[in-house]
Amino acid sequence: MSTLAGGRALRADARANRGRILDAAEEVFGAGGESASTEEVAGLAGVGIGTVFRHFPTKAALLEAVLVRRFDRLREQAESLLDAADPGEAFRSLFGHLIAYAAAKIAITEALLDAGGDRDGEAARAAERLHRAVGALLDRARQAGAVRDDAELPEVYALLAGTARAAARASLDEEAKARLLDIIFDGLAPRSHPPRG
Amino acid sequence: MSTLAGGRALRADARANRGRILDAAEEVFGAGGESASTEEVAGLAGVGIGTVFRHFPTKAALLEAVLVRRFDRLREQAESLLDAADPGEAFRSLFGHLIAYAAAKIAITEALLDAGGDRDGEAARAAERLHRAVGALLDRARQAGAVRDDAELPEVYALLAGTARAAARASLDEEAKARLLDIIFDGLAPRSHPPRG
Repeated sequence: MSTLAGGRALRADARANRGRILDAAEEVFGAGGESASTEEVAGLAGVGIGTVFRHFPTKAALLEAVLVRRFDRLREQAESLLDAADPGEAFRSLFGHLIAYAAAKIAITEALLDAGGDRDGEAARAAERLHRAVGALLDRARQAGAVRDDAELPEVYALLAGTARAAARASLDEEAKARLLDIIFDGLAPRSHPPRG
Repeated sequence: MSTLAGGRALRADARANRGRILDAAEEVFGAGGESASTEEVAGLAGVGIGTVFRHFPTKAALLEAVLVRRFDRLREQAESLLDAADPGEAFRSLFGHLIAYAAAKIAITEALLDAGGDRDGEAARAAERLHRAVGALLDRARQAGAVRDDAELPEVYALLAGTARAAARASLDEEAKARLLDIIFDGLAPRSHPPRG
């Protein structure tokens, strides 16, 4: 193996480790609970604790990277849904993903703040990018006539973020979550009658 | 003045002071901000700091009493709306009150936790009583055909609590809050078409 190829293999190996550590951290801290620890993350990822700290010098840095990756993935999902054949269904689908992820997001954010992390750091910027992508998807759904004309991003995002959080806090079962989505999307449907005076 | 009448006057005076202190605390701590203090509450209520502490031995006790009073008032409002001529409008009206109060509730709850208060104390029990009163009002609106049959309290409460909180966090303006209520209540309206498969 040439030195160059060896360097590449090392870097690929480091990347794979980084990905496994982030997967494990998302699982361990996303489940919440007082006992979640970086040691448990290392164990689940199959690496030593030193490897975890080589990639992420602090627990806060690890948790922030988990959130950034998750927000960026949701944003990519939103962006890929911009080309969907049914923009209304696309919007509903993203809404469902965000509600499904809310409990883990809350647990990881709380762990981040407990670990001395910053509420306005890189994760907040990734959340802002996601927010914009949801806005683009809402525009598309509105243009396609799948969402009412008068719904604007601030209140739709409040509806989305708020119900996702509350559904997680109240530990709604899957049927109640489905009914919640039905209520929200019936409310977001275009009006067949003139709006009230 | 007889001793008995004098005792009554003293008690009435103490009750009036207590009410003024609670009003002032709701205003001062409901507005949020780091600088909110018990001294400011005493000043606004027009009493000495000693009087505040005679009524409420700790800041946490004061803040908990503010929340209990507010939740109990909202519950009384919900109960009085049970007899309203238009149960759908009654439910919407209560929803509007809860959204309007959300920002102050969040600020006071955070101050309570900062002051070492208990998340599961008397305020939590008052919130539970309010929760039940909202359930009764929802039942009434559903029976009157003003709210869809398949909407149950867990998801409706998640919708209510979640959007109220998110609207406060996002500092939605009054127009966006009104649009949010329109979306939610159009979603809660009885279905004029069969539900989707």
